[in-house]
Amino acid sequence: MNQAIITLLTDFGTRDHYVGVMKGVILSICSDCRIFDLSHGIEKHNIQEGAFFLLNAIKYYPKNTIHLVVIDPGVGSDRRAILIQSQNFFFIGPDNGVLSLAAKSDGVEKVVEISNRDFYLNPISDTFHGRDIFAPVAAHLAKIGAVDTFGKSVNTWTQFEFPKVKMSETEITAYVIHIDRFGNLITNLSKELFEGYWRSQPSVLDIEINNKARKIPMCSSYSQVRKGEILSIFGSGNFLEISGNQASASDLLSAKIRAEVKIKLSKH
Amino acid sequence: MNQAIITLLTDFGTRDHYVGVMKGVILSICSDCRIFDLSHGIEKHNIQEGAFFLLNAIKYYPKNTIHLVVIDPGVGSDRRAILIQSQNFFFIGPDNGVLSLAAKSDGVEKVVEISNRDFYLNPISDTFHGRDIFAPVAAHLAKIGAVDTFGKSVNTWTQFEFPKVKMSETEITAYVIHIDRFGNLITNLSKELFEGYWRSQPSVLDIEINNKARKIPMCSSYSQVRKGEILSIFGSGNFLEISGNQASASDLLSAKIRAEVKIKLSKH
Amino acid sequence: MNQAIITLLTDFGTRDHYVGVMKGVILSICSDCRIFDLSHGIEKHNIQEGAFFLLNAIKYYPKNTIHLVVIDPGVGSDRRAILIQSQNFFFIGPDNGVLSLAAKSDGVEKVVEISNRDFYLNPISDTFHGRDIFAPVAAHLAKIGAVDTFGKSVNTWTQFEFPKVKMSETEITAYVIHIDRFGNLITNLSKELFEGYWRSQPSVLDIEINNKARKIPMCSSYSQVRKGEILSIFGSGNFLEISGNQASASDLLSAKIRAEVKIKLSKH
Repeated sequence: MNQAIITLLTDFGTRDHYVGVMKGVILSICSDCRIFDLSHGIEKHNIQEGAFFLLNAIKYYPKNTIHLVVIDPGVGSDRRAILIQSQNFFFIGPDNGVLSLAAKSDGVEKVVEISNRDFYLNPISDTFHGRDIFAPVAAHLAKIGAVDTFGKSVNTWTQFEFPKVKMSETEITAYVIHIDRFGNLITNLSKELFEGYWRSQPSVLDIEINNKARKIPMCSSYSQVRKGEILSIFGSGNFLEISGNQASASDLLSAKIRAEVKIKLSKH
Repeated sequence: MNQAIITLLTDFGTRDHYVGVMKGVILSICSDCRIFDLSHGIEKHNIQEGAFFLLNAIKYYPKNTIHLVVIDPGVGSDRRAILIQSQNFFFIGPDNGVLSLAAKSDGVEKVVEISNRDFYLNPISDTFHGRDIFAPVAAHLAKIGAVDTFGKSVNTWTQFEFPKVKMSETEITAYVIHIDRFGNLITNLSKELFEGYWRSQPSVLDIEINNKARKIPMCSSYSQVRKGEILSIFGSGNFLEISGNQASASDLLSAKIRAEVKIKLSKH
Repeated sequence: MNQAIITLLTDFGTRDHYVGVMKGVILSICSDCRIFDLSHGIEKHNIQEGAFFLLNAIKYYPKNTIHLVVIDPGVGSDRRAILIQSQNFFFIGPDNGVLSLAAKSDGVEKVVEISNRDFYLNPISDTFHGRDIFAPVAAHLAKIGAVDTFGKSVNTWTQFEFPKVKMSETEITAYVIHIDRFGNLITNLSKELFEGYWRSQPSVLDIEINNKARKIPMCSSYSQVRKGEILSIFGSGNFLEISGNQASASDLLSAKIRAEVKIKLSKH
């Protein structure tokens, strides 16, 4: 496992030195590791956003990539640190659910509770396990490759689920789970779920956001509406997005994260 | 072309996972590619800013660097994807002009319309060609090195030009094309153009910004005026800047991007 | 010194192309250098913040790492450029104190004034020495490894000190020297100083911030208080922090950088 790839996903931001410190710890242990940032801009302590980013990103990385995630509101409590081996990847992070969607999407093979202190920095703080536990474990894993070295297998670990899409005979209720830099409102409604529901795909959706009903064209690219107009589309992660062509749907609709998106079925 | 260098310039920001995903795609195809960020902070859809950054950055990179640019308001429309071979570099991006200033500054040798779907991800989305087309093409180019593999040469492609500097017998009219983190107002007036205009370089410029006239000393370093004071200077990219010594000229002058900067000649 | 590691710490932000340009300069000279970002989010011209980040980060990097720092309000003035060899590292930057705390913490062996123009870019600007002097010197040092090549040793160079903690028989007066993304108020009171002062560590501190007295529990992890509550703790850098459990102490206390933190001793 030479020139191992480690990705980092944290809520540390890039203004502070915390991410730079974690990279130093990794390089001091595994000098030829290659380190890539998935994002450090996760909203503070937001496990849902971290889980969503990770789910969307991992499959584009090479086999054996080590995905290191530190979104860790419970640092210093008795929450466990875990290491997951899935079919293609390794995941390291706190056992608070942030790893679960991505790991399960790849097929979980083994979950280990990280407990072997031989691989921690010494001393360890109770406020920065990213530096003292997760980064050194990732670097040692890159060299060793065997997850059993780090602790014992566990059968139960924390699962995270997106809020459920609700479906009735007259409407689907979905939720905005992420708003990206472009103001795209990304919902939890997957293309798969949507296509199982409709007999034939509608060309216009009757959508209610913020208690206001609108007819929004269903498109396959942004450019199918005029600049500044709103559309609905299955985005690059195959979730339904409410978007604007070169405009922010979030601004146009005053819609925020966790907003309810109702899709009425009656008219079609 | 081992250990090829690929630079990334996008308007994706670093908060979302989009840039991390593109890096994964590149590494999955070209495992030993080295990837460097030029910037991901381009204003959304701002082709001028992207063109300016690229023009200023490329010449500092080693020969054969692949510059991958995704500022792509027309994604999913019929705008073309292009690959440019210039004297020292390769450029990949949408055919919307964002590549043209930089590529021409290095001497364009060949422009190819990217059309060979063998090098795309499969399936491709209509919303994220950075991931599905541009990143994989860059990674394959790093391995193959021959631009003809990706499509046919084209003779016409989209050119971008900065707004023109206007020159009369009594004044020069330039425009603020970028404001950096320090509040420096960077104009489109190049040192070359300026020096062709004046017989001898003035020590003070009569400058009108926001309809207000000011005398601003012409300096060769920030420290030639007192802390907090305004100066004019040819910056690191050889464009005229209105700057402050340890102060933001943008704040001091309430000047914004695209502001008109008039330089009066009569008094000298 | 193959595959040398160079870290970058600047106040350039990541929106502009400046950091990307510096990386290009380094790669053009030292093609196999590995470059890592400590941070580019230092407040503009804030030498104290840069010194603090550097002090906290360097010891986690491998021996022989070259730490390149460009927080340089005096660029273009007669401030010197220096190169420091310490026991384990190299430091390159302006002689304004930003390097001094970190270099001294590692044991300074030699300080060289950078003056050999053979290693500068040509021409050099007076506004961007990060690109024209510091980056090329770092890259050449990575190849050469001998600091004497770059100029003559100097005996005097600029020292930076944090504001002093004041201690009387009845109170300690410390200062907030950094507020991180989580709103933690990091003070200049080190654990070492604190422990030399108290006979036995108190369980609650009588703290006065913004002229308001509070009793704040002294904890070893955030989770020892309820979510949203305030605590005091020695953080990952061993300085006293006023923090919130999953909440911003900065917001809760309306405390800003440089705020005075008084710790009363009488009650214990």
